[in-house]
Amino acid sequence: MRIAVAQLNYHIGNFDGNLAKMLQAVTTAKAQRADIVVFAELATCGYPPRDFLDFDDFIRQADNCVQELAKAAQGIAIIVGSPTHNPRIEGKDLYNSAYFLADGKVQQIQHKALLPTYDVFDEYRYFEPATEFQTVTYQGKVIAITVCEDMWNVGNENPLYTVCPMDELMPQKPELMINISASPFAYDHAEERIHVLRTNVERYGLPLFYVNHCGAQTELIFDGGSIIMSPDGKVFDEHPYFEECVRTYELAEVVRGGIVQEQPKEKMPLLHDGLLQGLRDYFGKLGLKKAILGLSGGIDSAVTAVLAARALGPENVRVLLMPSQFSSDHSVNDARALAQNLGIQYDIIPIETVFTAYADLLKPHFWGQPFNVTEENIQARIRGMLLMAFSNKFGHILLNTTNKSEMAVGYGTLYGDLCGGLSVIGDVYKTEVFALAKFMNRDGEVIPESTITKPPSAELRPNQKDTDSLPPYDILDPILYQYIERHQGPREIVAQGFDETLVRRILRLVNINEFKRYQTAPVLRVSPKAFGMGRRMPIVGKYLN
Amino acid sequence: MRIAVAQLNYHIGNFDGNLAKMLQAVTTAKAQRADIVVFAELATCGYPPRDFLDFDDFIRQADNCVQELAKAAQGIAIIVGSPTHNPRIEGKDLYNSAYFLADGKVQQIQHKALLPTYDVFDEYRYFEPATEFQTVTYQGKVIAITVCEDMWNVGNENPLYTVCPMDELMPQKPELMINISASPFAYDHAEERIHVLRTNVERYGLPLFYVNHCGAQTELIFDGGSIIMSPDGKVFDEHPYFEECVRTYELAEVVRGGIVQEQPKEKMPLLHDGLLQGLRDYFGKLGLKKAILGLSGGIDSAVTAVLAARALGPENVRVLLMPSQFSSDHSVNDARALAQNLGIQYDIIPIETVFTAYADLLKPHFWGQPFNVTEENIQARIRGMLLMAFSNKFGHILLNTTNKSEMAVGYGTLYGDLCGGLSVIGDVYKTEVFALAKFMNRDGEVIPESTITKPPSAELRPNQKDTDSLPPYDILDPILYQYIERHQGPREIVAQGFDETLVRRILRLVNINEFKRYQTAPVLRVSPKAFGMGRRMPIVGKYLN
Repeated sequence: MRIAVAQLNYHIGNFDGNLAKMLQAVTTAKAQRADIVVFAELATCGYPPRDFLDFDDFIRQADNCVQELAKAAQGIAIIVGSPTHNPRIEGKDLYNSAYFLADGKVQQIQHKALLPTYDVFDEYRYFEPATEFQTVTYQGKVIAITVCEDMWNVGNENPLYTVCPMDELMPQKPELMINISASPFAYDHAEERIHVLRTNVERYGLPLFYVNHCGAQTELIFDGGSIIMSPDGKVFDEHPYFEECVRTYELAEVVRGGIVQEQPKEKMPLLHDGLLQGLRDYFGKLGLKKAILGLSGGIDSAVTAVLAARALGPENVRVLLMPSQFSSDHSVNDARALAQNLGIQYDIIPIETVFTAYADLLKPHFWGQPFNVTEENIQARIRGMLLMAFSNKFGHILLNTTNKSEMAVGYGTLYGDLCGGLSVIGDVYKTEVFALAKFMNRDGEVIPESTITKPPSAELRPNQKDTDSLPPYDILDPILYQYIERHQGPREIVAQGFDETLVRRILRLVNINEFKRYQTAPVLRVSPKAFGMGRRMPIVGKYLN
Repeated sequence: MRIAVAQLNYHIGNFDGNLAKMLQAVTTAKAQRADIVVFAELATCGYPPRDFLDFDDFIRQADNCVQELAKAAQGIAIIVGSPTHNPRIEGKDLYNSAYFLADGKVQQIQHKALLPTYDVFDEYRYFEPATEFQTVTYQGKVIAITVCEDMWNVGNENPLYTVCPMDELMPQKPELMINISASPFAYDHAEERIHVLRTNVERYGLPLFYVNHCGAQTELIFDGGSIIMSPDGKVFDEHPYFEECVRTYELAEVVRGGIVQEQPKEKMPLLHDGLLQGLRDYFGKLGLKKAILGLSGGIDSAVTAVLAARALGPENVRVLLMPSQFSSDHSVNDARALAQNLGIQYDIIPIETVFTAYADLLKPHFWGQPFNVTEENIQARIRGMLLMAFSNKFGHILLNTTNKSEMAVGYGTLYGDLCGGLSVIGDVYKTEVFALAKFMNRDGEVIPESTITKPPSAELRPNQKDTDSLPPYDILDPILYQYIERHQGPREIVAQGFDETLVRRILRLVNINEFKRYQTAPVLRVSPKAFGMGRRMPIVGKYLN
């Protein structure tokens, strides 16, 4: 038996596009003499469809897509994920299901039992969990089909669920496992994925075909990395990251094993490529081409500009340099040098005249008040407004350049530097931004060296440094990581050796700035815990603040 | 047996404050000779605690709060909601539980089985559902204690769950039902609540004590309306809306019945009072006092200003009138008249000089480009920036004045009139805003009549009217209502008699403007389906657009 694993980049709600792509892959799989071709979880409608699932019309279109695929299942079987109706009145109205299509029609449907409802996942919002488990027999082979999370309840110390679908399927003596997934990228996810899959393979002694999405849907990036695993737990093949790919495997060869083919998993290249994918699909799937951003001479906007130029092409990226009286010469020079290195269009627009116009207008009202954060914010907001004016006039989408450290502690101006349709590096801590900049320069200087070496500054008042109001990033970031990614409270973080006053201050800053994060752009998710849908915090609350 | 129902306004994460409030209510209940006092669901930590539940420290503090309450349970029993640990390794780490405290200690714990995971609710994100159900016996009475949703699986045509906790408890022959809840306000919710509770009472033939939260937590407003229901299904008492209230009932009298005491349920007073509560608690619980907003002379900002003045006191509300060359005289006059009617501070700040400064700065870059939405947005953004400058300088929180119709179709400027820390009427359709304005004027003109009667206009270009780009609101709003509140697709809405081209255009506008709503302030929720946490839509998608 020959099994084709089709790792594709779907588009939420784009039923025609997704169907066309799958039909094409069916043709490819047939050319590769496959007996079965496997698509990913909810491949018909894209993932995550969110509340579109509440619309009967949306489900009807997914059903139509399955019917069309069924027609194409001639001389080849198709496994594909799609939502299905729950025929019972009780329980949620839908299942998250895997269809088995063969001989021109739907042969069998297996629903998903374990519904991830944590972090970015909301599946129990929509789906009823499966309670029945049935293998599929095709060409004499007994196949255990599961959907994503159904395989994730083993191999971790704190299982989230009380059932284990493969345990239920084993009495039916399956000879192989097929898992269709929609498992989003984080820089450490590929390792974890292989660990979990291997635990399953070792537990059940069966070969495994694991099929993932690739491509991004707003903030969620899917890296692909579909896995074919031999019964000895070795990775027989791992599909490339961030690429569509249809490959067919002879089951007997996978069972025999002896071949190991894994993708490299270093953090910086993964972060870099993941962010490129996120940018590319945000623009591509929204039908957009051109981006704009403000270049300050600092490292955040520099890294964002490099990513944009690489993802969209330098001809589609435009930057504004908007110095004020507080901007240093070297900042403007560094920004210009970067724009020239990248070959992107840049304009220099000093903001003093507009700042003066505001100051004059406000003078009678602000009489006797000292220069403070108000005037700093006005500068940041003038820049946001100029960028949005270009965006409106020429159709460029404004990219937000805020990093995760700033986003965490609220070191940014709402409606100023927090503007933008997409936050590119909002899930990348400042210390990681530095590492990414160095990685970008590995084959020659793209980002000017002084941008990397000078002390970070917002340049909104004379001689301002980030360290005036924040601890150094190599202290700040580890504390933030413990609080955000690791869910450690003040007591636990202090026990790790951090200063208690500092820890309390940082955690308080994170909590009182929830209102800013509520209003910022979607953040490309590259870590196990990004701001946005995956981290839901009260604004009005009194905890650690 | 005498039962005290304590309807209180909790504060998320404010364990000391919540505890103090409950201990005070215990004293009151004792003075009322109560045998049991009942607090609401998750009363220790407030509702919804969201991802604070992921922190061990947070759960520890809730546990401490329960221990303190247990000490106070002398001569009176206490029922209170709090998160508890799941002792099993499998499943989620927490339960959402009702504690029964008596004789100075924890006597019994009943977990919640039905975990709402839809609309604004995310409970399965945190909690394992109960599988065991045990009545409590106290002073010879057998009591069935359930938590909120546990009673909501009857009385509707499409039950969301496959179990029914009261059915499980009935074999233990309970004599009364106590339900502790956290059930947020919508203008139609009080009716629905009584319907569901009555269905339970009639099905089980038992008296019911239903205890709800009152007060707001950011966007979620809890109206209270705690219900005491006699076994004949009559409302023996309904606590006032939006007010704390501790009242004690003699069980025998409730069983005997014959008294009916319900709160009035007209939509406009409910909307009005709900929004006041939302405003009051947003400011009160964040430790803030003062609000600012822009007054355009239009009806949205007028209604918002009236709400702010009533919620916070006119001395705490400041408004800016910011005319441009496109503002009509009557707009400025109407705005000024309103400010004077309300007795709030107002300043008139014409924006032309700043607009000219922007125009001059952009002239070389925008050469040959016609005046378009860019220049309209610049005006809206200058206003947003001026308001934020006042906010920063004097500590006023900016209120957003966008209505639900505009929010739906994207008729608003990001970082302009969409600025603000809280969206006050973002869940109120334009046609409802008109009705609310008339309701506000019922005892004399507060909002100038011409603000209500003139055709709506953004006044961002000469002679602009909303109807230049949108259908009349009495056609737009019903279409939006069908799509947003009723989840009807294009086919179903057209079948109701609306023009297909118009319906497709409106639904497309809603979908392509998801990116704007993603970045707007939390919206006070007063309808069954508000923008924000309760409506989760993809940004990058291709559905109906």
